[in-house]
Amino acid sequence: MQKVRMGMMGGGPDAFIGAVHRMAANLDGKIELVCGAFSSRPDASQQMAQQLGLNRSYDSYQQMLEQEASLPADQRMEFVSIVTPNYLHFEMSKAALEAGFHVLCDKPATLTLDEASQLAAIQKRSGRLYALTHTYTGYPMVVAARELVARGELGRIRKVVVEYHQGWLADSGAESGKQAAWRLDPARAGISCCMADIGVHAANLAEFICNDAIDQLSADLSASHGRLLDDDGVVMLRFASGARGMLSASQIAVGEENNLRIRVYGEKASLDWSQEEPNSLKLMHADKPFEVLRSATPAAAELGGITRTPPGHPEGYLEAFANLYRQFAEQVDRQRQQQTTDSNPLPGIDAAVRGMAFIETVVAASASTQKWHKVPAQPVKES
Amino acid sequence: MQKVRMGMMGGGPDAFIGAVHRMAANLDGKIELVCGAFSSRPDASQQMAQQLGLNRSYDSYQQMLEQEASLPADQRMEFVSIVTPNYLHFEMSKAALEAGFHVLCDKPATLTLDEASQLAAIQKRSGRLYALTHTYTGYPMVVAARELVARGELGRIRKVVVEYHQGWLADSGAESGKQAAWRLDPARAGISCCMADIGVHAANLAEFICNDAIDQLSADLSASHGRLLDDDGVVMLRFASGARGMLSASQIAVGEENNLRIRVYGEKASLDWSQEEPNSLKLMHADKPFEVLRSATPAAAELGGITRTPPGHPEGYLEAFANLYRQFAEQVDRQRQQQTTDSNPLPGIDAAVRGMAFIETVVAASASTQKWHKVPAQPVKES
Amino acid sequence: MQKVRMGMMGGGPDAFIGAVHRMAANLDGKIELVCGAFSSRPDASQQMAQQLGLNRSYDSYQQMLEQEASLPADQRMEFVSIVTPNYLHFEMSKAALEAGFHVLCDKPATLTLDEASQLAAIQKRSGRLYALTHTYTGYPMVVAARELVARGELGRIRKVVVEYHQGWLADSGAESGKQAAWRLDPARAGISCCMADIGVHAANLAEFICNDAIDQLSADLSASHGRLLDDDGVVMLRFASGARGMLSASQIAVGEENNLRIRVYGEKASLDWSQEEPNSLKLMHADKPFEVLRSATPAAAELGGITRTPPGHPEGYLEAFANLYRQFAEQVDRQRQQQTTDSNPLPGIDAAVRGMAFIETVVAASASTQKWHKVPAQPVKES
Amino acid sequence: MQKVRMGMMGGGPDAFIGAVHRMAANLDGKIELVCGAFSSRPDASQQMAQQLGLNRSYDSYQQMLEQEASLPADQRMEFVSIVTPNYLHFEMSKAALEAGFHVLCDKPATLTLDEASQLAAIQKRSGRLYALTHTYTGYPMVVAARELVARGELGRIRKVVVEYHQGWLADSGAESGKQAAWRLDPARAGISCCMADIGVHAANLAEFICNDAIDQLSADLSASHGRLLDDDGVVMLRFASGARGMLSASQIAVGEENNLRIRVYGEKASLDWSQEEPNSLKLMHADKPFEVLRSATPAAAELGGITRTPPGHPEGYLEAFANLYRQFAEQVDRQRQQQTTDSNPLPGIDAAVRGMAFIETVVAASASTQKWHKVPAQPVKES
Repeated sequence: MQKVRMGMMGGGPDAFIGAVHRMAANLDGKIELVCGAFSSRPDASQQMAQQLGLNRSYDSYQQMLEQEASLPADQRMEFVSIVTPNYLHFEMSKAALEAGFHVLCDKPATLTLDEASQLAAIQKRSGRLYALTHTYTGYPMVVAARELVARGELGRIRKVVVEYHQGWLADSGAESGKQAAWRLDPARAGISCCMADIGVHAANLAEFICNDAIDQLSADLSASHGRLLDDDGVVMLRFASGARGMLSASQIAVGEENNLRIRVYGEKASLDWSQEEPNSLKLMHADKPFEVLRSATPAAAELGGITRTPPGHPEGYLEAFANLYRQFAEQVDRQRQQQTTDSNPLPGIDAAVRGMAFIETVVAASASTQKWHKVPAQPVKES
Repeated sequence: MQKVRMGMMGGGPDAFIGAVHRMAANLDGKIELVCGAFSSRPDASQQMAQQLGLNRSYDSYQQMLEQEASLPADQRMEFVSIVTPNYLHFEMSKAALEAGFHVLCDKPATLTLDEASQLAAIQKRSGRLYALTHTYTGYPMVVAARELVARGELGRIRKVVVEYHQGWLADSGAESGKQAAWRLDPARAGISCCMADIGVHAANLAEFICNDAIDQLSADLSASHGRLLDDDGVVMLRFASGARGMLSASQIAVGEENNLRIRVYGEKASLDWSQEEPNSLKLMHADKPFEVLRSATPAAAELGGITRTPPGHPEGYLEAFANLYRQFAEQVDRQRQQQTTDSNPLPGIDAAVRGMAFIETVVAASASTQKWHKVPAQPVKES
Repeated sequence: MQKVRMGMMGGGPDAFIGAVHRMAANLDGKIELVCGAFSSRPDASQQMAQQLGLNRSYDSYQQMLEQEASLPADQRMEFVSIVTPNYLHFEMSKAALEAGFHVLCDKPATLTLDEASQLAAIQKRSGRLYALTHTYTGYPMVVAARELVARGELGRIRKVVVEYHQGWLADSGAESGKQAAWRLDPARAGISCCMADIGVHAANLAEFICNDAIDQLSADLSASHGRLLDDDGVVMLRFASGARGMLSASQIAVGEENNLRIRVYGEKASLDWSQEEPNSLKLMHADKPFEVLRSATPAAAELGGITRTPPGHPEGYLEAFANLYRQFAEQVDRQRQQQTTDSNPLPGIDAAVRGMAFIETVVAASASTQKWHKVPAQPVKES
Repeated sequence: MQKVRMGMMGGGPDAFIGAVHRMAANLDGKIELVCGAFSSRPDASQQMAQQLGLNRSYDSYQQMLEQEASLPADQRMEFVSIVTPNYLHFEMSKAALEAGFHVLCDKPATLTLDEASQLAAIQKRSGRLYALTHTYTGYPMVVAARELVARGELGRIRKVVVEYHQGWLADSGAESGKQAAWRLDPARAGISCCMADIGVHAANLAEFICNDAIDQLSADLSASHGRLLDDDGVVMLRFASGARGMLSASQIAVGEENNLRIRVYGEKASLDWSQEEPNSLKLMHADKPFEVLRSATPAAAELGGITRTPPGHPEGYLEAFANLYRQFAEQVDRQRQQQTTDSNPLPGIDAAVRGMAFIETVVAASASTQKWHKVPAQPVKES
C-alpha cells in the first residue's frame, strides 16, 4: 500500500500530544507526514517543520487547507490530524471536512454537544472520513475484551465498573503548567476539565467494550482549589441494556499516574483490564480458575487484537495509538480504491457525538438535585 | 492474664461463621469456650458441644443466660459470642446485656436502625461491653492505614473509593444453599442482602480508616433473578469532612471471591489496600516512588498493627478475626480489674448504630428519585 | 475426636518459633498443650507454664519424659513438640521416642546425617510416630501442586527453579539478635546456617511437590562478615527422574522477607507458587491462557488442599503450620484406635534423613573443585 | 538533526526481527531506511523493498556495499542494520566496516569468540561505529538500575539472580517453524541455541546493570528431543567484583513468554526488574518499605531513562529497541560533525566479544567435570 499523506494542525514545540501522534503515525511506516500548521505562531510552526525535515509549513490551518487543496492529487495531504487544545477542534474539523480532507481528531470532538451534532451532519454531507483518537480502544486486549462480550462469552452484562484516576492536578500549583492551564480554562476546554479530558475516555471504553450505551446517569463532580472546572467526579450509570455501573474519574488522586481500569461483570464470566498493564486481560469464571489472556498469544490473536511483537514482548500506549492510525490509514486507502470502507472498530463521528452528550449530561447531573438524567441519544442536527 | 470464658449463641453444625469465630477465639490461647446454645434444635446444640469437648450445652439461649448467671462468678461465662442469622442478633444481644454478660456480636447488629438505637441505650444502661465483629478492621494494615490518616500523613482526605465484590450469589441456584437462603429472605435478613451483608463492611472500613462519617449518599441497588433483596449496588458518598467517595458492593460479580478494597486519596498522599492480599499497604506520593508497607515489619509495627509472625510469613482472615477477639478479651480483662476500658479501636455500639443507619439510608435512597439522602447521625434512643 | 495431649520442649519466653507452634496447635481445637520443659532455666520454664495457664512445668526435658511416663495413660502427654535450637533436636527426639512418646520436631531433624540415620533406626524400632515441621508443605496450594504433578497434569518434569531469599542477616550487626546468634554458631547450628535453616526447606519443597529426589548437585555457598557458616548459596540440581534444577537461598538478600518460591516446568504445563502470596497457584499452559488456582475454591479443594475459610478469605503461615499439627493429631488419633496410620503427606523420618543428606552434600560440594556430588539416598543405619 | 540513512541486511518477508528493527528505527523519525539486501533471494529482496516504498533494493549484501559506496556522500546509506540469522553476522559486519559503513548488528555478534576478536580488531582499524542490539539495555528502568548501582545506592553488590525463561521450543514440533529451525541448527546458529539466543542477553543484562564482569562460571545445559544444541541451562556465576550469582535460561519452560528478570542484591539495598512489566523497578531496603520506581516519573528521569510518554502511559519492547536506534543515530550524527562520540551506554564491540566469551565458556563448562571455568577477558586479536 502506498503511504497515506498526513497534515497536522497543532503539535508545535512543547506540545506533548502532538509528538505522540507523530510517533504513532510513524510506527508502521504506512503514513507520511507531509505538512503542518503546527502553531498559531508562524515562526513556531516553521521551526517545528524544520525540526521534522518538512518543507511545507503553514502559518495557519486555513492557509494549509487552501494551499494543500491546490496541489496535485498525488502530492497533497489526504487527511489532517488535529492535536490542538479542545476549543479549536470543531472549527478545524469543520473546515477540513468542507475542504475535502479526511479528519483524525484528538478528543473531545468539540466543546459542546450542539457543535458535535453539527459536525456529524457536516461529516455525513462531506463523504469524508472522520475518526476520534479514543486511544485506549486501540489496545489489543481492549479489542479482545469487546470481542469476548460480542461472542457472548460473558453472558448478559450486569455491572460495569470503570475508573480513570490521575494525580497530576492534585497540587494547587498545577495550573502553571502548560498542559493544565488550558484544560482548567473554560474558554479553551469547555464546560468540564476532568470529565472532558479523561472521564469521557472511561465512558467510551465502557460503551466500546460492551457495545452498549449509557442511557441514564447520576453524577457528583467536584473542584479543588477554587477551580472553575471539575477535577474529580463519580457517576452512577444505567446502560440501555439494563446493565448498571459506576464511573470514577480524578485528576487529583495523588500518586496515580494514568490508571484507567475497567471491570465488566456478566452472568457467565467477568473481565478486568488495566491500562497500566495493558498486555493482560483477566477473565473470571463462576466455576473454574480465572485465566489471564496475554496479548500476542494465539488466544488473543484469535480475538482480533493487533500486535507487532511476539508474546512477552510488551507493547504500550504508543502501539495502541499507532493501531488507530493504522486503521485510519487503511480506511483512507480503501476509499482511495473506491471500496466501501467497512466498519473497523475505530471510533468515529457517533462516538464523537456520544462523548459530548456524556460530558454535558454529567455536568448537568452534578448540578441537579434530581437523581437520574437521560443521556440524549445521537441528536444529529440535520441543519 | 487468666483466660476469658466465652459462651456461644449459634454456630451449630454446618454454620460457617461459628467455626470461624471459634478458631479466632482459640488462636491466642486467651479465651476459653465454656458453653453454648449452638442451635435452636437441642440435639444439634448438644452434638456440637460434644464435638467441641464441652459439657455445658444449652437448649436455648434463654436457658444459657439463666443457668450461667446462677454459676459461681469464677466459672460462669463472661461474654457471649452471637453468630446466628441476623434476625436473632437484637433479641440475643439485649437479653445477654440485661442478664449481665458482655456481648460480641456478628454484624449487622440488628435488623433495623430503631432496634440498634434501642440496643445502644440498653448497652449504656447495662455497663457491659459490646463489640461488633467488623472483621476487616482487625487487619494490621487497616489499623496502620487508620493511623497514617490520623497522623496527617495523607493530608486532608479528598476522595474514598471502596468496593466489596463477591460472586457467590451470581447464579439463580445460589438460593438453595444454606448461607444464601437466609440472607435473601427478608424475614431473617432484614431489608437488604448485599448492603447488609457486605456493603456495610465497606462503609465501616471507610469510616474506620478515615475516622470520618458518611453524611449523605445516593444509591442504586439492584436484584437479580426476581430476588426480594438487593444483591448488588453502587453508592455515591459525601463525608462529614467534605471528602467525596463511592462505594460498590456486589454478590453477583462472577469470579470475584471476597474482593474488599479501599483507596483513600488525600492532599499529600494516598493509600490502597485489598483484603485478598492483606499484608501489603500501598502508599502513593505526589513526588516520589510509591511505597509498599508490609505487615510485621518495623515500619508497620510502629503504626500499631498487631501481628504474630515475622515479615513475609503471611497472616490472613483468621488472624484479623482473632485480633478482634484478643482486643475484646483484653477489654473484658481490664473491666475485671476495674480499670477503665480505654478505647482500643474495636468497633462498638456506635459502629453498630451507624451500620444500621447506613443500610436503611442506602435502601431508602435507592428507591427515591431524590439525589441526596442524609445518613442520620447516632440517633440513640434513650427510651 | 478426643483432644490429643501435647508436651513442649523449648519455646520459652522470647522464643519465636515456640509461640508459632502453640498457635498452630491451638487453631483447630484438636490438641491440648498439657505440659512443657520450656527452657533450660527452670524458672523461665515455670514462668512460661504460668503464662500459658499450665500446671505441669518441668525443669528439664529428661524430667518431663520421666514424670509424664509415670502418669495415667489418659492424662499423660501423647506427643512432644520439639522447638529448641538445632543442636538439641537429636537427643530430645531420641529420648522421647525411646520413652514411648510420639515426636513432632522442628527442622532440621539433627545436626548431622549420621545422627539422622541413627534416629531413623530408633524411630522404626520404637513404633512411635515422628514428623518434621516442613511448614511450607502444609500450604493448601502446595498440596494442590503436588497433586497436579502426581496426576500427570504437567507431564514429565523438566526443570525446577526454587529459591528462598531472606534479608534479615544482611547486616553485620545481625549476630547480636537471639535468633541469629545460635544459627551462626557451629556448635549450636551444625555445619550450615543458610542451607540448614532455609535451603533445606527449598529442597524439601521441590522434592515434595515433584515426588522426586535430588540425586546430584553442585554448590557455591558464601559467608559475609567473616561468618563461620554460610549465609547465602546457589545450587545446581539434578533429580533422580532426570529433571534439572536450580536452588538459591539467601539470608543476606536485603529487603527480602521470606520469599520462598518454586516453579516447576513440565512437558505439558508448568506451575509457579510463592509463599508470600500463598493462596494462588499459577498454572501455565503451552497453548492457552494461564490459570490461577485459588485456595478454598472447589477447583483447589478437589486437589486436596485443606482450608478453613471460604474463597477470598486469605489463610497464611499459621494455618499452614496448623495443617501439619492437625495431620499429626489425626495420625496420633488413628494409632490410638489401632488403625494403620495411612500416609498423609506429612514429612516424616525419611524427609528428616533426606534433609540432612542435602545439607551435608551441599556443604561438601561447595568446598570441592569437582562439579557434581551425589546426595546419598536414605542411608538409614540399622545399628 | 538531519535524518540518518540506514541500509538493511536481512529482514525479508516473514522475518520477525527485521520488522521489529524497522519499527524501532521509524519511531522517533530520526532515521530513514534508504535501501536493503533483504533476502538471499533477489526477488524476495525486491518484493520487500517495494512493500516498504524503497527504490534501492539489492540482490546481495556485497552488491549493496559496493553500489552504496559509489553514491554521493549525502545520498548513500550511513550505516547498515544486520538482522540475518547468526551465521552471517560476522562476514556482513566485517565487510560493512571495511567498506566504510557503521554497523548495528543483532546479537550474537558472531558464531565464535575467535571471530568476535577478529571483528573487534577490524572495527578498531576501521574507525567506524559498531553497536550490538542488546535490546533489554534500552529499557528506561534498566538504565535507571545501572545508574542506581553506579551511584552506590545498593552498596557493594553481593548477589545477582538473572533468569530468562521462554517456552516456545518446548514442543518437539517447534523445529518446523522458521524461527526455530535455524536456531537449532549448528551450521547457522553456532555452538548453542538457548545460551546464544537468550542466555547471552541475561548475562549482558547482569554485567550492564552492575558494570561488572562474569569472571568464572559453572554450567549445566540440556537439550530436549535429541536436539543438537541446548534449549535450557543453569549457570552459577562469580563476578570480578566478588559478587556471586546464578543464571537460568530456558526455551522449554512451558507457558513462559519472554520472562527476563533480574534481581541485584547489594549491601544496602536491592533491586528487581522484569522485562514483561518493564515500567516498574522495585527497590528494596533493609529498614524501610520497598519502593517502586516507575518509568517516566521525575524520579526515573533523574536516573537517565529515556521515555516518550508521561507517567502511566506504558512503553514496551519497541520503545526499548528504538532507544538503541536513537542512541546509535546520535552517535552517527556526532561523528558526522567530527565530534568525539562520547560513551552512551549502547553495547558495542566489547559487549560483542564478552557475549561470545560467555557463550563459549558456558558450553565448555557444561561439558566438563571441573567445577569452575574462567571467562576469558577481552581477548581481542590484533591480527
